[in-house]
Formats: sequence, structure tokens, C-alpha cells
Amino acid sequence: LLKQQVLKGTFLTLLLAGVSGMHAQTATAFDHSDPHPGKEYAKFNNVGDLVRPTDYREWIFVGAQVTPNDMNDGKPAFPEFHNVYIDPASWAHYKKNGVFRSGTIIVKELASVGTKGSASGNGYFQGEFLGIAATVKDKKRFADKPNNWAYFGFDDKSSAAAQRDDACAACHKANAAEDMVFTQHYPVLRAAKAAGKAK
Amino acid sequence: LLKQQVLKGTFLTLLLAGVSGMHAQTATAFDHSDPHPGKEYAKFNNVGDLVRPTDYREWIFVGAQVTPNDMNDGKPAFPEFHNVYIDPASWAHYKKNGVFRSGTIIVKELASVGTKGSASGNGYFQGEFLGIAATVKDKKRFADKPNNWAYFGFDDKSSAAAQRDDACAACHKANAAEDMVFTQHYPVLRAAKAAGKAK
Repeated sequence: LLKQQVLKGTFLTLLLAGVSGMHAQTATAFDHSDPHPGKEYAKFNNVGDLVRPTDYREWIFVGAQVTPNDMNDGKPAFPEFHNVYIDPASWAHYKKNGVFRSGTIIVKELASVGTKGSASGNGYFQGEFLGIAATVKDKKRFADKPNNWAYFGFDDKSSAAAQRDDACAACHKANAAEDMVFTQHYPVLRAAKAAGKAK
Repeated sequence: LLKQQVLKGTFLTLLLAGVSGMHAQTATAFDHSDPHPGKEYAKFNNVGDLVRPTDYREWIFVGAQVTPNDMNDGKPAFPEFHNVYIDPASWAHYKKNGVFRSGTIIVKELASVGTKGSASGNGYFQGEFLGIAATVKDKKRFADKPNNWAYFGFDDKSSAAAQRDDACAACHKANAAEDMVFTQHYPVLRAAKAAGKAK
């Protein structure tokens, strides 16, 4: 079946390449998780602010952690669950090359703790969405930022300017395991990188 | 931009429909999260066991909860983080119709708690993968199962038989908010359903 998928994808890619030339760079393989290879998912408006991403729940899930109010004196840095996503084109690149490409956008969606108990036991279970934050790596646009990553907070805003380096970047640079991303908490990324290296 | 994506997708769909007829049912719209509309992601072997899903980390993330060892006397029903995914075709159907189609497969991947503290505060952060479980709704194959859902546990196995109803189904039927799925803990599903209704 996998072969069928690959063949079908390759057929599709070749067809598109033949008709429009637009996906020619992917003629060797089709990744069904990435229907728009090389696409830039981070969009900026005419004053250079990041436009609020809208379809990130259909990107690739990176991982989730919870910093509950009740374990942080009611005031965690980011309340409470963090659902983290990477755009599909950058995921495909990371799987293959093990690095975050220029153009990577990672979105962190925050959700409240809805309950601390359910049929499966005691713990933390998600309640309601609380907003999003995002980070974008761009070698040209953010040439002066640490490792070319910029950080953005959205409350109800439709766009956001990059945060000062001391707001987010400093902590990511000091504590994250890999290129300012906390891969130490993301087995999804570690497994993808290991699988890519094994090929 | 959204319009561009939709137009590009429609063009692609029409092109495929014209060439092969295989995606003709989607000619009205293309959902970039679902490159294989109507596809059956649950695969069964010749004795009727569910074949272990392999690419579920590239499906749609439904939600994550944590039932940590240290909140469950060391023995939670499912250790410890649960990362839950739905297949893309069934996600597209759920978004549009607000119900789980026959053919839906949902995978729960378990991960350990790696640490209880990080730069973002105190809490629970993912460690290493511990295995997967899955559930499939199929009106024909599981005509005799509660709401046509069957449940499967995979340790290191490459396939699994359906569990007895008293192992999983009974608890899901008694406690889950919607068609034996715990949507009360999944804002992603609730939001998708609400958006679908609003259209």
C-alpha cells in the first residue's frame, strides 16, 4: 500500500510538474503530509508584522506540555496546556535534513485545564483555548535575531510585531536543546530526526 | 491567499478528476489537510486484525492529556501523556458534518513524563514514547460493537485483535461526551464542529 501511495503521489507530482512546473523540485518523492512542498506558511503584512496563522490545527503536531496554574502559584508563564505545531513544509524539511529551515513557523496554542480527573484517572485534561503564540525562523527577515528566530504573541490580534529579544529569545537560547526549540520535550521531533538520519 | 489555495486545490482536483476520475467526489472543494479524500486509513489483515498504523503523527492532532504516574499511585490506566490523532479523511468529514464517519480511526500515542520542570515553569513535559492504542468505527465490520467502535492495544505488535467490550468500550460508552469519544477534553474537535455548523 505504501508503494501505491508513493506511486500515486509521484504520478501526481509528475503530472503537476509537467503541467505547471511548480512542484518540479519534489519529483523524486511525494510526502502526503506536505501537499504544498516549499510553501511559506508564515505570512507578513505590509508593516512586517506576522499575520495570525489560521489553519495551524491542521499542521503537524510537535508535542504538548502543561504548566498548570495550580503548580505555578496561579501564574504560569504560559497558561496552561501548550499544543505545539510546525508547518507541514518545514516538517518535511526537518524530517529529511534534521534542521529547521529558514521559513519555519511554529505555533503554540494555549488551552486551559478543564478538569483534573476523568475516566482514565487523575491528571490534567484540556478545557478551552486561550490564545496563540508563534515563532518564525527567517535568515533574511530576521538576520539580526538570535539564530534568526523571532517571537510573536497574539491575544485577540490579527497580526503581531516581533517581541524584544529579552522577552522570549533569551530564554529559548539559554534552555532549548536544539536551535532554540525545546526538542528535549518533543519526542515527535526527536523520532523524526532519528528516522531521517537512518535513511 | 486562502482563495488562492482553494483555487489551486480545485484546479488540482479537477485535473485529477478529469484524468483519472478517482477524486471526482471532491470536485467542489479541496481540503489541503486531506490530500486523499475518502481514504480508509484503518487497514486490516487477512484474519481481521487491525494493522498497526504507521504515519499517524502526520494525521490531525485531536488533543493531549496527562495522567501521570505520580497522580495515580504509579499505575495510571494509560501512562502518562496521551497524544491523540484522527485520520485526515475522517477529520474532513467531522469538520463538515459533525459526526464520526464509518471508517474513522483514532490513535492514542502514549509518552512518559520526561520532567516536571522547565524554563516555562512547573508542570508535566513529555519524555519518550511508550506505545499506541487505537479505535476504529466501522458500521459493517463492527456491526455488533457499541456504536460500531472497536478498540485495539498495540505493545510491540504489528497487528492487534479487537478488545472485549468490557475492556474499553464500556468505559467510553459510559463517560465520553460524544459517540464514545471524549470530546469534553478535546477543544480541537469542539471548535471544528462549531465552525462547521456556522457555515
